[in-house]
Amino acid sequence: MKNEQMVRQRLLTAALDLFVRKGYAATTVREIVAAAGVSKPTLYYYFTNKEGIYLEMMTRTFALFQGIVDQISDSHGPARERIIHFATMIFDSVLENIEVVRLIYAIFFGPPQGTPHFPHDHYFTTMLAVIANMAQEGMDAGEFRKVEVDDVAWTIVSSMNTIMEEQICHVPPRADRARLMSMLNLYLDGIAVGKRT
Amino acid sequence: MKNEQMVRQRLLTAALDLFVRKGYAATTVREIVAAAGVSKPTLYYYFTNKEGIYLEMMTRTFALFQGIVDQISDSHGPARERIIHFATMIFDSVLENIEVVRLIYAIFFGPPQGTPHFPHDHYFTTMLAVIANMAQEGMDAGEFRKVEVDDVAWTIVSSMNTIMEEQICHVPPRADRARLMSMLNLYLDGIAVGKRT
Repeated sequence: MKNEQMVRQRLLTAALDLFVRKGYAATTVREIVAAAGVSKPTLYYYFTNKEGIYLEMMTRTFALFQGIVDQISDSHGPARERIIHFATMIFDSVLENIEVVRLIYAIFFGPPQGTPHFPHDHYFTTMLAVIANMAQEGMDAGEFRKVEVDDVAWTIVSSMNTIMEEQICHVPPRADRARLMSMLNLYLDGIAVGKRT
Repeated sequence: MKNEQMVRQRLLTAALDLFVRKGYAATTVREIVAAAGVSKPTLYYYFTNKEGIYLEMMTRTFALFQGIVDQISDSHGPARERIIHFATMIFDSVLENIEVVRLIYAIFFGPPQGTPHFPHDHYFTTMLAVIANMAQEGMDAGEFRKVEVDDVAWTIVSSMNTIMEEQICHVPPRADRARLMSMLNLYLDGIAVGKRT
């Protein structure tokens, strides 16, 4: 059982590396098994085919994200702290899974690569909804001014999105976790009730 | 002469459509000339090869962008109005050139596609510098509070970037020009001196 998990993980790691370096379309099953040091039937046994590896990768990654969303949805406290906490957790998770994030962006923005359908847009849609929800709670609680909640959600998700993109596109990134926190804190100061420095 | 320009434009249009639909790597010179209704030697005469068409496309697009930057750099007036004006012009230019913007994102985020080098990152770097400059002028003029200028530049460029991405990724876009203006106005309210609603 332990061995099974190791073999699965070796195949996933090898495939991810190839998908990122060469592109999904250009990667063959032969290259994946060679890099993982296993036989073709082993790959077929665990994942059926290249599509199966890709979908497992995407499903696992989305589950990690969903775990963060569930955690924040169950949390209590000031909206400001919860928003900052959510953004921090997402950012840290992106850094920990930077190669799969790179692949998701390549699939999402790149040319058609023959990948099976996966609803990558759910990340963005869910983040918008989570932030909008917290922003609305902050307004209802008198923590934020009564402003257009969609403006708040889009601006915060835009900052998260762009700073994540910077981690995959620029070496070294010109904006990091500290910059994102500083951007969000300044933004939340701007919509806070009464606060002004 | 007029005819020359028309032929060049037909080749550029046909190539852009193919690069976006099939990807740059998968597009052949044969497909481009067939779509443009010209002969292979005509393409070679005007652009040398596929790389030449791509580079001309990229150079023209960057020149449009640089034109907007020059226009805003020569402008005067309140920083707030200039920032909004810049974002509007960039957004409108993106909509007018949506297919080439789609290609740039596909090249920038996508898997290696064998394109000749073009410094796509200059768009982002230039936008950051232009916004930071206007934000600093706004602070010096007492229009904005003295906050961290890089936070302001990154947040505004993040909003512009993400709303542009929405135009190429989501049909219909869930956030449009009006949303971007509303996001930026709310943000600029938040850093304005004295203003509070």
